[in-house]
Amino acid sequence: MPAVAPITLALDAMGGDHGYATVVAAARLALDEHPQLHLILVGDEARLRPALHEHRLAGETRVVVHHASETVGMDESPSKALRGKKDSSMRVAINLVRDGRAQAAVSAGNTGALMATAKFVLKTLPGIDRPAIISAIPSMNGHVHMLDLGANAQCSAEQLFQFALMGSAMLTATRRIERPSVALLNIGEEEIKGNEVIKQAAQLLQASALNYVGYVEGDGVFTRDLDLVVCDGFTGNIALKTGEGVAKLLYHYIKQEFTRSLLTKAAAIAALPALKALKKRMDPRNYNGASLLGLSGIVIKSHGSADAQAFATAIRVAVAEVRHQVPQRIAAQLAKVPVPSHAGGAAS
Amino acid sequence: MPAVAPITLALDAMGGDHGYATVVAAARLALDEHPQLHLILVGDEARLRPALHEHRLAGETRVVVHHASETVGMDESPSKALRGKKDSSMRVAINLVRDGRAQAAVSAGNTGALMATAKFVLKTLPGIDRPAIISAIPSMNGHVHMLDLGANAQCSAEQLFQFALMGSAMLTATRRIERPSVALLNIGEEEIKGNEVIKQAAQLLQASALNYVGYVEGDGVFTRDLDLVVCDGFTGNIALKTGEGVAKLLYHYIKQEFTRSLLTKAAAIAALPALKALKKRMDPRNYNGASLLGLSGIVIKSHGSADAQAFATAIRVAVAEVRHQVPQRIAAQLAKVPVPSHAGGAAS
Repeated sequence: MPAVAPITLALDAMGGDHGYATVVAAARLALDEHPQLHLILVGDEARLRPALHEHRLAGETRVVVHHASETVGMDESPSKALRGKKDSSMRVAINLVRDGRAQAAVSAGNTGALMATAKFVLKTLPGIDRPAIISAIPSMNGHVHMLDLGANAQCSAEQLFQFALMGSAMLTATRRIERPSVALLNIGEEEIKGNEVIKQAAQLLQASALNYVGYVEGDGVFTRDLDLVVCDGFTGNIALKTGEGVAKLLYHYIKQEFTRSLLTKAAAIAALPALKALKKRMDPRNYNGASLLGLSGIVIKSHGSADAQAFATAIRVAVAEVRHQVPQRIAAQLAKVPVPSHAGGAAS
Repeated sequence: MPAVAPITLALDAMGGDHGYATVVAAARLALDEHPQLHLILVGDEARLRPALHEHRLAGETRVVVHHASETVGMDESPSKALRGKKDSSMRVAINLVRDGRAQAAVSAGNTGALMATAKFVLKTLPGIDRPAIISAIPSMNGHVHMLDLGANAQCSAEQLFQFALMGSAMLTATRRIERPSVALLNIGEEEIKGNEVIKQAAQLLQASALNYVGYVEGDGVFTRDLDLVVCDGFTGNIALKTGEGVAKLLYHYIKQEFTRSLLTKAAAIAALPALKALKKRMDPRNYNGASLLGLSGIVIKSHGSADAQAFATAIRVAVAEVRHQVPQRIAAQLAKVPVPSHAGGAAS
């Protein structure tokens, strides 16, 4: 491994369904994986100290605990978290990024609160109305990035264009793809399909320097060879979770079929290596770590149900974005391209 | 089998990706399955006659050919098909329903043209703004019905309510479910989630006599025990096709994993019965046949890529709707329930 500059991340240690024990375990995994990594665990010190002991982190000089007295609940409203909990582990982790003491924050806390807090504390880049959530998802050609996955329930054509621009810049920075192919998620591939917002976004993209390749339908996200799929957060969230649901259904079917008789049970034993490999490939933990794109700093959202391994994957995403200076790269793109403003567009 | 009244269906013999040969083959399957069924094959007589011979239908008294000189292309615009092709197989099949010569029409032709033509020729039921597309889709508990799957890219809250009412009435009629459970597809299950249209629709449903159970997320469609999921046609189409894409991706993975080595190839042979059963259960052909709900007559949309077996499944759906008098049952429900009007709602 070439010598790289040290990286410091702030982890919201209290967020997520499984709480601080999972985050501490993930910290151990991440420190072992990245020799240059330093971590600030933000949360209830009285609970974190014993957990550090349990995970061989008590004497680890690359870990510090930063006390925060409050925790944002998984179902708490974003505005309540923002106004009422100024010393929450989530808020303090993001403050550390704002103050330059950490280069990125990672949280498995509630998405709405994280988005609102990150936007309030870090602000969006010039020309960006609202941040969007982007993540890699598996596809036949490896993977594809998709945004927005749920931050903006309604979007204007201008916002969809901003998403395309930000996603492209991120892929160029982190994946070294010169001109990422960009498609708009729609209900048909013909030009006449879709609603007015999508048609206007298509026009903006066609007129831009981005590598816009047209519309993609829901199945094409997984079967076509694309780098980036752009959609509003409502559609993106439905698509992502529908995909999760179908994958669960298929596992349910596989299990039923392989336990149907003694013969199929025997076959299942023979098929075990292939079935295990299949499960590993579809494991959402390998795709954990969504970025809140469009902020002046790096904030990574881990799935609320993430275990230690999955949270470590989200940390890996944060490390990559810090190394590739994603916000700076997006800002540079925004400075080059005239970004259509939101004025006169649909309500967000 | 108890004696049942004869049923006559009009089949658009020229629609779909595979054309008349597939429809004729499906007709043979359907006639064998339903002894009381009579079919009118609508299309190019010169091409249909030889195909009837090939499929042992030449002397079959339960089949007649009704000539139509035109065919609607799969990519033709709905307005062009409606205005320019008054003797299309699709249009003539629907005319036969309007004139009482057939009790339902089945077409694998292009969805937009079929929707526009059916609405123009048959009209919507009183109180219904626009028809919606409903279909059964597989779920962990067997299946769930979902609408709208693509007829209405944008919907008002009132339309979503109408969809719920129509879908419920259909399920009560065809599946004998007294009070079908109805959920609204949304990006979260908490009340604050989603856009204004969905929140308004939730209020309308809560105030109604329908068995409304709240929001469902994309994964819950496949994992929860629900009878009916309601959404706008854009979201429904994205969800449906995303599901198809993920299923394709998983098959791709399964194939790759089982052909990776000699050992896994051997395992695949052992696992063949289970894998075949799995494939059969996920086969979209078993879920072919979507209804255009809200019309004064019955029109069933078969998938464009349907083969003979899949088209026969769509015919089965038509037979069930005729037997259970679905439009009449929906009209009776509409007469009982005050339907919120579309006035002041979002554009459709």
